[in-house]
Amino acid sequence: MKKPLALVAPWPRPRWMVLSDAHWARLAERLELVLHEGSPAPDELVERVLPDVAFVIGQPALPAERIARAPRLRAVVNVKGNWEPTIDYAACEARGIPVLSIAPAMAPAVAEAALAMALDLARGITPADRAFRAGCERWGIAGNLDAFLLRDAPIGMIGFGNLGRELRPLVAPFGGRIRVYDPWLPAGHLRDAGVEACPLDEVLAESRVLFVLAGVTTENDGFLDRAKLERIRPDAAVVLASRAEVVDFDAFVALAEAGRFRAAIDVFPQEPVPPDAPVRKTERILLSAHRAGGLPASYARISEMLVEDLELLLDGLPPVRLQRAQARTASIARSR
Amino acid sequence: MKKPLALVAPWPRPRWMVLSDAHWARLAERLELVLHEGSPAPDELVERVLPDVAFVIGQPALPAERIARAPRLRAVVNVKGNWEPTIDYAACEARGIPVLSIAPAMAPAVAEAALAMALDLARGITPADRAFRAGCERWGIAGNLDAFLLRDAPIGMIGFGNLGRELRPLVAPFGGRIRVYDPWLPAGHLRDAGVEACPLDEVLAESRVLFVLAGVTTENDGFLDRAKLERIRPDAAVVLASRAEVVDFDAFVALAEAGRFRAAIDVFPQEPVPPDAPVRKTERILLSAHRAGGLPASYARISEMLVEDLELLLDGLPPVRLQRAQARTASIARSR
Amino acid sequence: MKKPLALVAPWPRPRWMVLSDAHWARLAERLELVLHEGSPAPDELVERVLPDVAFVIGQPALPAERIARAPRLRAVVNVKGNWEPTIDYAACEARGIPVLSIAPAMAPAVAEAALAMALDLARGITPADRAFRAGCERWGIAGNLDAFLLRDAPIGMIGFGNLGRELRPLVAPFGGRIRVYDPWLPAGHLRDAGVEACPLDEVLAESRVLFVLAGVTTENDGFLDRAKLERIRPDAAVVLASRAEVVDFDAFVALAEAGRFRAAIDVFPQEPVPPDAPVRKTERILLSAHRAGGLPASYARISEMLVEDLELLLDGLPPVRLQRAQARTASIARSR
Amino acid sequence: MKKPLALVAPWPRPRWMVLSDAHWARLAERLELVLHEGSPAPDELVERVLPDVAFVIGQPALPAERIARAPRLRAVVNVKGNWEPTIDYAACEARGIPVLSIAPAMAPAVAEAALAMALDLARGITPADRAFRAGCERWGIAGNLDAFLLRDAPIGMIGFGNLGRELRPLVAPFGGRIRVYDPWLPAGHLRDAGVEACPLDEVLAESRVLFVLAGVTTENDGFLDRAKLERIRPDAAVVLASRAEVVDFDAFVALAEAGRFRAAIDVFPQEPVPPDAPVRKTERILLSAHRAGGLPASYARISEMLVEDLELLLDGLPPVRLQRAQARTASIARSR
Repeated sequence: MKKPLALVAPWPRPRWMVLSDAHWARLAERLELVLHEGSPAPDELVERVLPDVAFVIGQPALPAERIARAPRLRAVVNVKGNWEPTIDYAACEARGIPVLSIAPAMAPAVAEAALAMALDLARGITPADRAFRAGCERWGIAGNLDAFLLRDAPIGMIGFGNLGRELRPLVAPFGGRIRVYDPWLPAGHLRDAGVEACPLDEVLAESRVLFVLAGVTTENDGFLDRAKLERIRPDAAVVLASRAEVVDFDAFVALAEAGRFRAAIDVFPQEPVPPDAPVRKTERILLSAHRAGGLPASYARISEMLVEDLELLLDGLPPVRLQRAQARTASIARSR
Repeated sequence: MKKPLALVAPWPRPRWMVLSDAHWARLAERLELVLHEGSPAPDELVERVLPDVAFVIGQPALPAERIARAPRLRAVVNVKGNWEPTIDYAACEARGIPVLSIAPAMAPAVAEAALAMALDLARGITPADRAFRAGCERWGIAGNLDAFLLRDAPIGMIGFGNLGRELRPLVAPFGGRIRVYDPWLPAGHLRDAGVEACPLDEVLAESRVLFVLAGVTTENDGFLDRAKLERIRPDAAVVLASRAEVVDFDAFVALAEAGRFRAAIDVFPQEPVPPDAPVRKTERILLSAHRAGGLPASYARISEMLVEDLELLLDGLPPVRLQRAQARTASIARSR
Repeated sequence: MKKPLALVAPWPRPRWMVLSDAHWARLAERLELVLHEGSPAPDELVERVLPDVAFVIGQPALPAERIARAPRLRAVVNVKGNWEPTIDYAACEARGIPVLSIAPAMAPAVAEAALAMALDLARGITPADRAFRAGCERWGIAGNLDAFLLRDAPIGMIGFGNLGRELRPLVAPFGGRIRVYDPWLPAGHLRDAGVEACPLDEVLAESRVLFVLAGVTTENDGFLDRAKLERIRPDAAVVLASRAEVVDFDAFVALAEAGRFRAAIDVFPQEPVPPDAPVRKTERILLSAHRAGGLPASYARISEMLVEDLELLLDGLPPVRLQRAQARTASIARSR
Repeated sequence: MKKPLALVAPWPRPRWMVLSDAHWARLAERLELVLHEGSPAPDELVERVLPDVAFVIGQPALPAERIARAPRLRAVVNVKGNWEPTIDYAACEARGIPVLSIAPAMAPAVAEAALAMALDLARGITPADRAFRAGCERWGIAGNLDAFLLRDAPIGMIGFGNLGRELRPLVAPFGGRIRVYDPWLPAGHLRDAGVEACPLDEVLAESRVLFVLAGVTTENDGFLDRAKLERIRPDAAVVLASRAEVVDFDAFVALAEAGRFRAAIDVFPQEPVPPDAPVRKTERILLSAHRAGGLPASYARISEMLVEDLELLLDGLPPVRLQRAQARTASIARSR
């Protein structure tokens, strides 16, 4: 019997970043793999495989009319981590074709980085190292007057999706209350997940350590505006780890630089950050060049999740590792 | 009835650092408090209170002959955190007088700092911030080629006293094996504490993240010599958090600077570090000026532990928060 | 604007068991609620609401042709906890209509009961109480010769769905390895969930405490046959908590009664168990009359999950608490 | 060099119960072992070894005058688990001779049994099994009307010594607040141990699951009198797991039997319980014949703790596994 056909077109990622050699070989036992990397899959290639393709791994455009011409299509896997607007989610849903995303693969790495940055802000690790190199370090308590412990500190999370769920067990042993604002998740769900549902203003005003972990949609762009940011408690450490678009970025930078709160930033409205962007001139903000998620361990994880879920699909079972798009939420999620 | 007398002579610490105003007032309800701060307690003062003193809080010299002249002495509390050689531990033990230390008060702060430094080394937080400020940051995966996750990484601890016990729950959620070398603690005790007893060489060779948490005694000075340090696995992140004297410091710095392993250092053979010390010229080592333990939260903790244990002693109950000296171990512990 | 219409036809459950008065009132603010309880919803009622119904809460038959006549249908919620064969899952999927089940609501209660039964078997709680009442109790060690601790005991779970996920955190503090056999879940998924994927034979042979938590499908009926059951280690305690159909029940009872392993049973092939069933005559088996899941706390949980998910659906958001049917898995799941 | 001498006189326990063959052999490498079992060590034997004995393992009387004639005595280990009044604790303390007890060895077993009994009371495991055997079981919800979950239930502990510390991690995953009343332990110590210090009346009135874990002293005999017991909340499940003497036992039995609260009892004022004791006629109380602690795993643990601590003592290091007597607390603790 002929093996089902999979189109692997991972651009802008290279193949190795989404499928290791070992996993590629493992998949090749059950799938006929057609690879195109280095550029977007040419239309000609996509059109050619449509009649036979069972799995599309990558981001080729899949409007309704193409889906209609792919009678054997069983799943689409986005390997960028965003919900691309070039896929017709409703058309997939109507055929029972899951559209999957590797977004959860990055979450453990982002969660660890978020904790690292929170601890850095609480203890001044980075500025203390800088001062030491400059020969002006301060010893012991003299350098620690505004240092604080995470132990028993109230934690806040804005957004409790993949990132929040990975971060929660890492901050739990510090023992503080964990307040969450996430308008997509009801109170009982959050209680069962070990956190407390709270209004946004309470999360802002009460959290000593505040993690901004919300994804950006067409509806929540900039919802952390200046007025909201001014509610943050003055001694807070704030980690911006998900998407820059959810905050009024200029206000965020200005407030942090003015000492209104401490801040670490991993995501920026424009990346790379332009040479003359004000954020480059900050003294107080901990800066990270979108490094929280993309490291070798995350790519190994993408590969494992991909091969495990494809094997489940080949066995007629539901995928359990990749994240499944819901037509409505995918439609409001904002890609980059 | 007359209240028992307590001599409070906390030098080199000021009083506020070991007893908050509120705790001072709380103790004053049950004790007659005699305070001397700003310098070591004068002999004249010590001699004068000897006949009545019930509690000595601080570091006045207490040789056997003074203890013999203190018939009402019930406990001695060292507020520096080391076992001072100026106290006759055996004489105290023979009288059933506990000698207590505030050492455990610092442990939560040191544990959090140790985790912060480990995460910093694993993810390159500090050098990436430095590069960003210099305008030469690398974005995403390009800046992350040697970054790694703590998730499932083998953890090693050398020494499992106050520091290790506080650190264990913070690293447990990352899920890796936790190996411990501590020649003072048997295997069954460590297993019950949730870690694995291992030979030193295995801890050095297998740990991706290695915490040096051992106290220094007259017997273990420099036991992590160059030969031992060369057993550390090449991709390890090593955090030196307890006492510089347990390692061959020059070798440690040289190996880390040569890229043999990654390292963070909070404690130094001489503090402040002299201007021309080689460690100041390192590029790769994360530097911290003995900041891990001494912050406001730790001093609040000293104060709470002190007042709670003194109240227990006044009630005829055993102290539970401060650490009790054992004559033999105190005698080999090295003060600074 | 007219409120969307919901048909609430929870038979065989009464309304209070799936929606508390408070939750009913809360839903009534946003939905027009049509209730039929005490018997299956009459066809006439179902037919009448079809043109307007947005939510069907209960088990009315929903073949494809009815779904076709329900243009506003947005979700179906099964409140029994099984996947009923009377719903056309594929037709719902094609319309993007989620079919949801309250099955997860029972899981916390079943998990606690499973732990209770495991501890009972390990320690002989029930037979020791029985002996005490009969005046033939044995004191201390004499009554404990075959008692064992869960501490460090290897745990096995057969099936790792809702029940296993709730049980895992309850058994984790005992510290033993947790092996799982679940052919629907790949190794990486299980590792991330904090358990080890293992072949069935290893789970059977190595687990001191074995939980049978698998649901029954048309494909796994009786898969724990006598040959498999004979692989269980002789000193094991086995808790049968999900569905009797997954084991060769007669063999299971015979082996347990013969002392081949210890067993607790909460689910039976026929319920109530007939008066002359051999299981009633057992001396050694801990018996529970399908009591693990159905208690007031579980019904309160159904109600909360239902109202929270319906509110999400009304807001155009994906449900997060109830379990969503997948057409293929629902088709092979066996209802009762 | 001659090996130090150890007198092993474990009566009323047999030798195997406190030292396994393997551990005996391991100790024999470093100690000359003199064993007497089956009866209390004869005075003649004790007198004879006094001049040389380094370790006394067992309960021979050790008044001050004997201790004075044992110049090489380094430690005394009580293997019964109580503080015997036949040892002069102050005389040992004055010589720096630790008096150690194996009490902590039993704690894991007692903690598991206490949890087992609490779950049994919450879910009615034992009475439901009894009803099933009698053919009058009630199925599903009908048999569960007063069943409750430990999930989120407020937990109370009276006493937080060895037992409480072992029990805490087992009840923590259920998620409820854990209130503790222990007059020997200050609030900050309990907070660090992960529980909340509370007044006794609050623990009694608020806990849904209440564990009585306090040891008995000359001062707290019967402190849970009828008035206190009447403060227990009516839907509580109470587990009496430490010593019967801390409660007014008759009142406890009467209240539980009257349905005032649910109760499980493992310890009794007189053991074995006399044939005509009222507690034997109870219908509602879960009965356990002092079985919580004494099982093979506990004896293996005694043996391991003993050998590990003796080896530490031989190395001049402080023991870490056995519990050390404090002269004052040992003097008020009541033996049996």
